[in-house]
Amino acid sequence: MAATQWFQERLLIDTPGKGLTDITARVTRVVARSKFVIGTCTVFVRHTSASLVIQENADPAVLRDLERWFADLAPEQRRWEHTDEGPDDMPAHARSALTRTSETIPILDGRLAFGTWQALYLWEHRERPHQREVLVHLAGQA
Amino acid sequence: MAATQWFQERLLIDTPGKGLTDITARVTRVVARSKFVIGTCTVFVRHTSASLVIQENADPAVLRDLERWFADLAPEQRRWEHTDEGPDDMPAHARSALTRTSETIPILDGRLAFGTWQALYLWEHRERPHQREVLVHLAGQA
Amino acid sequence: MAATQWFQERLLIDTPGKGLTDITARVTRVVARSKFVIGTCTVFVRHTSASLVIQENADPAVLRDLERWFADLAPEQRRWEHTDEGPDDMPAHARSALTRTSETIPILDGRLAFGTWQALYLWEHRERPHQREVLVHLAGQA
Repeated sequence: MAATQWFQERLLIDTPGKGLTDITARVTRVVARSKFVIGTCTVFVRHTSASLVIQENADPAVLRDLERWFADLAPEQRRWEHTDEGPDDMPAHARSALTRTSETIPILDGRLAFGTWQALYLWEHRERPHQREVLVHLAGQA
Repeated sequence: MAATQWFQERLLIDTPGKGLTDITARVTRVVARSKFVIGTCTVFVRHTSASLVIQENADPAVLRDLERWFADLAPEQRRWEHTDEGPDDMPAHARSALTRTSETIPILDGRLAFGTWQALYLWEHRERPHQREVLVHLAGQA
Repeated sequence: MAATQWFQERLLIDTPGKGLTDITARVTRVVARSKFVIGTCTVFVRHTSASLVIQENADPAVLRDLERWFADLAPEQRRWEHTDEGPDDMPAHARSALTRTSETIPILDGRLAFGTWQALYLWEHRERPHQREVLVHLAGQA
């Protein structure tokens, strides 16, 4: 067997503030550049107020429902102790705790093994736009 | 050292509708077939209305409590915008967002390194029975 | 290319009861001992009433807010069916279901690729102190 190879890229993602940004195409291009046929793709977000989630890619209403539901689960109106950066600060940490900092997707026949309806989203939890850093680490074989 | 080896299998899991199905034995058999002694086992569910969770394997009341609690966290009665496939549709996506799409378990001495009380569950979030596809990707050494 | 190497260590973490214990330094030392320059670090907790979460490392108020918020999300006063080990038993399982059993962090230039504000916490969900077992599995190259 051929030895494992590693392939790492850093993505910078501009978010428009609160909401889910589909990063599937960006991560797919990293896999294509690696030429890996089999392996795993680990995606890691280097922040604690933005996170990852794999969700439906078809109806944008799903994303709006998730956003509103999360606003209720971790409400800004709650009496949070940590309010240094404003009312959206602590809810952003709370929302991150409920979702993913890392996600690992198998590579199958040279492609990310997503199901038909799956997309990978970066979920921005702060009110204002941010540039977020996401590491993509592949372990596999070309 | 020997080179890494890869081993991938696709499992089809029949669920009886809402609730947790223990898939530990199915995944354990994949590890046994691989003959890997050390490595990692990544489990990935190819859906956005079913998910993974590692939970207690002893008292079935734990699973019933989780099911009822999740029904309250993401209630069908909420005014969801996305209702195309019925009242259990959007709650299923919401429940998936709170649990896992991928889970990585170390392989130790040829076995999944679960603690005594741990089992891996596929959590069906839709009302009706479904056949779900789960990818098991091992990276390790025989 | 050099072949992949594996490196596994078991950490025993003493928790003071409910709350988040920063285990970043412990895991960082495992990475240093491995001498790996590139790869992944998978952390796995072998329990269903303690879990992992990557969160802010700066203001301890964030950890207190998370603790209080989780106490509200999975309240002891709820009518849980599974109460064998006391009122904090089932809430502990519920809180674990919302957070992580495994977390995978890329290794970049010989270091865990955490962002500036990130730390890895073991979250104890039981009232009393426990000794918890955490597996650290590295796959990479020295």
